[in-house]
Amino acid sequence: MAGNSIGQFFRVTSFGESHGKALGGIIDGMPPGVSICEKDIQYDLNRRKPGKSRYTTQRREMDIIEILSGVFEGFTTGTSIGLLVKNIDCRSKDYFDIKDIYRPGHADYTYDCKYGYRDYRGGGRSSARETVIRVAAGVFAKKYLKKYHVSVRGFLSQIGNICCEFKNWDDVEKNDFFCPNVDCLPDLDELIRNIKKKGDSVGAKITVVAENVPPGLGEPVFDKLDADLSHALMSINAVKGIEIGDGFSVIEKYGSENRDEMTLSGFKSNHAGGILGGISSGQNIIVNIALKPTSSIMVRGTTVNKFGKISEVVTRGRHDPCVGIRAVPIAEAMVAIVLMDHWLRQKAQCSEVFQKYLRSFD
Amino acid sequence: MAGNSIGQFFRVTSFGESHGKALGGIIDGMPPGVSICEKDIQYDLNRRKPGKSRYTTQRREMDIIEILSGVFEGFTTGTSIGLLVKNIDCRSKDYFDIKDIYRPGHADYTYDCKYGYRDYRGGGRSSARETVIRVAAGVFAKKYLKKYHVSVRGFLSQIGNICCEFKNWDDVEKNDFFCPNVDCLPDLDELIRNIKKKGDSVGAKITVVAENVPPGLGEPVFDKLDADLSHALMSINAVKGIEIGDGFSVIEKYGSENRDEMTLSGFKSNHAGGILGGISSGQNIIVNIALKPTSSIMVRGTTVNKFGKISEVVTRGRHDPCVGIRAVPIAEAMVAIVLMDHWLRQKAQCSEVFQKYLRSFD
Amino acid sequence: MAGNSIGQFFRVTSFGESHGKALGGIIDGMPPGVSICEKDIQYDLNRRKPGKSRYTTQRREMDIIEILSGVFEGFTTGTSIGLLVKNIDCRSKDYFDIKDIYRPGHADYTYDCKYGYRDYRGGGRSSARETVIRVAAGVFAKKYLKKYHVSVRGFLSQIGNICCEFKNWDDVEKNDFFCPNVDCLPDLDELIRNIKKKGDSVGAKITVVAENVPPGLGEPVFDKLDADLSHALMSINAVKGIEIGDGFSVIEKYGSENRDEMTLSGFKSNHAGGILGGISSGQNIIVNIALKPTSSIMVRGTTVNKFGKISEVVTRGRHDPCVGIRAVPIAEAMVAIVLMDHWLRQKAQCSEVFQKYLRSFD
Amino acid sequence: MAGNSIGQFFRVTSFGESHGKALGGIIDGMPPGVSICEKDIQYDLNRRKPGKSRYTTQRREMDIIEILSGVFEGFTTGTSIGLLVKNIDCRSKDYFDIKDIYRPGHADYTYDCKYGYRDYRGGGRSSARETVIRVAAGVFAKKYLKKYHVSVRGFLSQIGNICCEFKNWDDVEKNDFFCPNVDCLPDLDELIRNIKKKGDSVGAKITVVAENVPPGLGEPVFDKLDADLSHALMSINAVKGIEIGDGFSVIEKYGSENRDEMTLSGFKSNHAGGILGGISSGQNIIVNIALKPTSSIMVRGTTVNKFGKISEVVTRGRHDPCVGIRAVPIAEAMVAIVLMDHWLRQKAQCSEVFQKYLRSFD
Repeated sequence: MAGNSIGQFFRVTSFGESHGKALGGIIDGMPPGVSICEKDIQYDLNRRKPGKSRYTTQRREMDIIEILSGVFEGFTTGTSIGLLVKNIDCRSKDYFDIKDIYRPGHADYTYDCKYGYRDYRGGGRSSARETVIRVAAGVFAKKYLKKYHVSVRGFLSQIGNICCEFKNWDDVEKNDFFCPNVDCLPDLDELIRNIKKKGDSVGAKITVVAENVPPGLGEPVFDKLDADLSHALMSINAVKGIEIGDGFSVIEKYGSENRDEMTLSGFKSNHAGGILGGISSGQNIIVNIALKPTSSIMVRGTTVNKFGKISEVVTRGRHDPCVGIRAVPIAEAMVAIVLMDHWLRQKAQCSEVFQKYLRSFD
Repeated sequence: MAGNSIGQFFRVTSFGESHGKALGGIIDGMPPGVSICEKDIQYDLNRRKPGKSRYTTQRREMDIIEILSGVFEGFTTGTSIGLLVKNIDCRSKDYFDIKDIYRPGHADYTYDCKYGYRDYRGGGRSSARETVIRVAAGVFAKKYLKKYHVSVRGFLSQIGNICCEFKNWDDVEKNDFFCPNVDCLPDLDELIRNIKKKGDSVGAKITVVAENVPPGLGEPVFDKLDADLSHALMSINAVKGIEIGDGFSVIEKYGSENRDEMTLSGFKSNHAGGILGGISSGQNIIVNIALKPTSSIMVRGTTVNKFGKISEVVTRGRHDPCVGIRAVPIAEAMVAIVLMDHWLRQKAQCSEVFQKYLRSFD
Repeated sequence: MAGNSIGQFFRVTSFGESHGKALGGIIDGMPPGVSICEKDIQYDLNRRKPGKSRYTTQRREMDIIEILSGVFEGFTTGTSIGLLVKNIDCRSKDYFDIKDIYRPGHADYTYDCKYGYRDYRGGGRSSARETVIRVAAGVFAKKYLKKYHVSVRGFLSQIGNICCEFKNWDDVEKNDFFCPNVDCLPDLDELIRNIKKKGDSVGAKITVVAENVPPGLGEPVFDKLDADLSHALMSINAVKGIEIGDGFSVIEKYGSENRDEMTLSGFKSNHAGGILGGISSGQNIIVNIALKPTSSIMVRGTTVNKFGKISEVVTRGRHDPCVGIRAVPIAEAMVAIVLMDHWLRQKAQCSEVFQKYLRSFD
Repeated sequence: MAGNSIGQFFRVTSFGESHGKALGGIIDGMPPGVSICEKDIQYDLNRRKPGKSRYTTQRREMDIIEILSGVFEGFTTGTSIGLLVKNIDCRSKDYFDIKDIYRPGHADYTYDCKYGYRDYRGGGRSSARETVIRVAAGVFAKKYLKKYHVSVRGFLSQIGNICCEFKNWDDVEKNDFFCPNVDCLPDLDELIRNIKKKGDSVGAKITVVAENVPPGLGEPVFDKLDADLSHALMSINAVKGIEIGDGFSVIEKYGSENRDEMTLSGFKSNHAGGILGGISSGQNIIVNIALKPTSSIMVRGTTVNKFGKISEVVTRGRHDPCVGIRAVPIAEAMVAIVLMDHWLRQKAQCSEVFQKYLRSFD
């Protein structure tokens, strides 16, 4: 298959191009009996929505979600769920000039190498516009996990050289950066203004934390929980790096520093980021991702076109100065989808320990 | 399924515990007509083998590979390939003392939470001993890709605070560290000696480079080439971080710096690490992984046991002071397996561009 | 996953209920560069459409297909294809009376046992209305295969005790029964009139023939071509039996009668139905399926309801007196989807023999 | 992947050729805590074993099973289970004469078309010898299901024109035919003697019954329980037809006859074979399969060879006069594997109804 699905038991498949008629998706494996409505989904879609602040692209999409099946009288039925978001505000003519040009840092060249056919309008299938369906599917996962008090939340931890030290979750939803520390806002505002002035873009780092995940999620060897999280997160456009727990800083650590010792009251530390041997340990799951600066910039660059001629390119269209900002709800969604998938996998094969855990919520 | 398989079209499934009778695996999807023999596989197994230098565990396994099916008269037949490596040098009694104790940093606790049943001898299924089958399967992928001049090679880029700047590939196979720069060897030797003296361990960073990969490998959206590489690499024991190309350093970069401009003679730079929009660009694919220091150390630590009692633990058994060293052939194998899988996927669905490329090798 | 997908490389996933907003699907793995438009799909949808003759249900659906993605400027792009068919003519109130009653022979009882939640309107997800997406997806497969002169065609071979001996393909499309022999039409007409008068229904047998299938499609052991065809065909509502080639008549045959001997001009016979050892032999692939009489009838029957009370039931709503009639395009679609999937699988792994075959069409 | 796996959650992958070193397999997804040993498996392997009576092939294989992993101290651990059966009694030289000849009715020709490479010894991978691993894996499924009182049993229902009316299960294990009616034994004995005298073979019909299957197993649309059973059963060598419940006899039935009405004490009949809308109804699951007469016969036949020359062939080697006889434990295993897979799928996604059912066994 051509890679438009994720998950084994909770499986999300999507379609749609940036300037096509609609984006859509199917969730297969959603358990029955979960109360959900379009409004629930709209909340997270709005968090990701373009055009909602001056820090993001000015494309104005309402991103109205339609549930076409699988929910009846307010509850999931256990059958496949059809999702649809129509595209409204496409300005495809912005792209006509560059339809034969390979924008540097974009997938234009690689799509042409792969398929020989390409919908050049707004990046077609390679556009991050497809992430709207990821976020919608993530809401189903979040809703289910919430019954068990599992939460999945993300925040911006760095843009350019501005590190946003975590202060509290309340701050995160109170600003357009998902920044967990309102003290950083003036600096962030200035950075983005400068970037926009130059027509340039900048990279970012996002942190996602999953709380109250029970121990036992994840499979040995290839489908380790961290392996599946890495897959899911690296599949988000612009992501170039993944860390679980302490990530790259472990290189310089000794085993005696890095291991998380246990006491009767639990683990003494959480260098592992909540995953041991690929299986959740019951501690918070902590992941970081690095997002590159978007390549759609107004700074002139050299490239070649489809016919092998040298060319200069300036990306018109409406773009994010930092794709990392809107990536927070997307990264949360991907973590929720992976946890949901492994939840069902564990439920399928599980031991009495997990059964007992589940029953404690009845 | 419980996660013991990787790949869609080139699919590797494995079994086996550290101190069980044998490790084994099945490769499904290997194309017919590839010349291969056990000696080809042994070469890479020996690179990974324990006990081959004073820098690695002293467990002495010959790691003799047996091909049980799928190869006939020296060529692959296209049917499934059975692989077997018997365990010889198990000292299971080393583990009897700690059978009820959760070693910190190990999967003991999480396996018990997950399954309720656990083979405690040498870590059972959670032991890195299973990687012997990854390496064997990787050889099949490497052999196939070699016909198209694709090579996959790795090296040690850092241990602790010693960075090994890449000098040349020749150096890599000439030392027990897979270090690409023989000038670093005295420092590395000293570091490992010190670590061993303390009974401690240290982290490491590995770089893998795939050369001559044609453009077009990788699928849009979820099964991006970098997403599948991240999955495969993060599934290796002890890996805590992944970078594609410039990885985490993109956070502080501007779009105008980070994009790889194109000229008639190709890309001007390779910040992307050979992957654009999840699809190979024809440039070298470059990945880095961070490996934590092994948790099996002689430094005393506190933990709890199965019965909820506090306990102290010192890991006996024979262990690597730095698991990163032996991880080089394992990481190469995982990259090769992913490339092979996407090669077949591309062959299945591919455009005329790729067909033409394939024919150029006929 | 909950079973709403079929195929490995050419993968169709669907959603939708009989009386929901819409039916929809996603095709993943469709190769790029195939010329296709909504009109191509409409042709087969019209063959399956309800209400087109007095022999089928009187529900009037236009079954207008919308392609929402994956096709650009008249050609497939290789990315996922979104399909949508809106429901128009739902009379859900017909079903309100029986919302708590388990109609005998229907999935009402089993869905309630499985999920505890059920969309009772028109059978919800269990309705054969979902087959509209199968037929639409089948057109993509047929279109691709046609380039290689592979055709997939079906006909009605029996209704009740009326056997329709095959005369010619031209007859098939000239009557509302897909009967390959116009001489049978008066008898068929009379049979269905009688059935309708009684408010009863009757079973049927359908034959599908795939011509010009090259040898080599199908995988050893579990994913044999006949195994995958059986899976696909048995998944059609109301199917209760499958035969490949001579099917059940082989029980009474000797090996010397049943084997298909070969000569220089090809096979002497085709008892095997074009498949040997699970792999296509290059002969016509021939399958038969048996469809039960629909359980939605006006003849009063006893049953129980959700609350464990005995009840009588008469199925109102609009139903087919013989679901077998409209099953012809559905069965063709399923055979085409399976062949397409195995085509891509063979292309992925294939030998030089198959490569040579493919090139002969360039 | 090349088709050597079956199942989604309970996944069996196999390897091995008729005259290779060994047959083997991996079970992935087996729940932990199930008591099992090699002796349990040997029982069913012996039922299938060649050479155990004069009615089967005289190849003498002990079929000794080795469990290489995934079982520790008598219980499954939840990790992957490695299985091995060594080949002992190969007479490969019997096949040297026909290594370039396509035996009629065999997979020789299609394997050569598919792969270009073939292990001709005893049919290589296409030999029914691979079914030894199916039977072994089936025992794990049977053991697990037994806890819930689910049993899966088969019998011979017809050979040639001798129908064996079901009398009782006790008879089945008391004769070499798996015949459920000892009165038929003299006729069966005579038939097989005659067939063997002529060097010919004959077809057969097998019935498998699964009892105490709870309602709710099976998924909507494509992965219906009957669809997956059909896939699994048709994948057995020589099977050419499948019936669920009344199978092909439904063609001539009216809806009013064929539907199974319900009363307070359950269903009045079981024409459906225990499956409604693709989901188990709680009634017995009943399937029939038709097996063709083996093509390995001593009756001379015409064929062609690899080089396009006409040839005559007599199949030497040791063969079954009726492959249907030994197919009983194989068919049981396939039904058990499918039920097990759907059991875990249902457990993953399931409703409170199923949870309550499971708890009743605690």
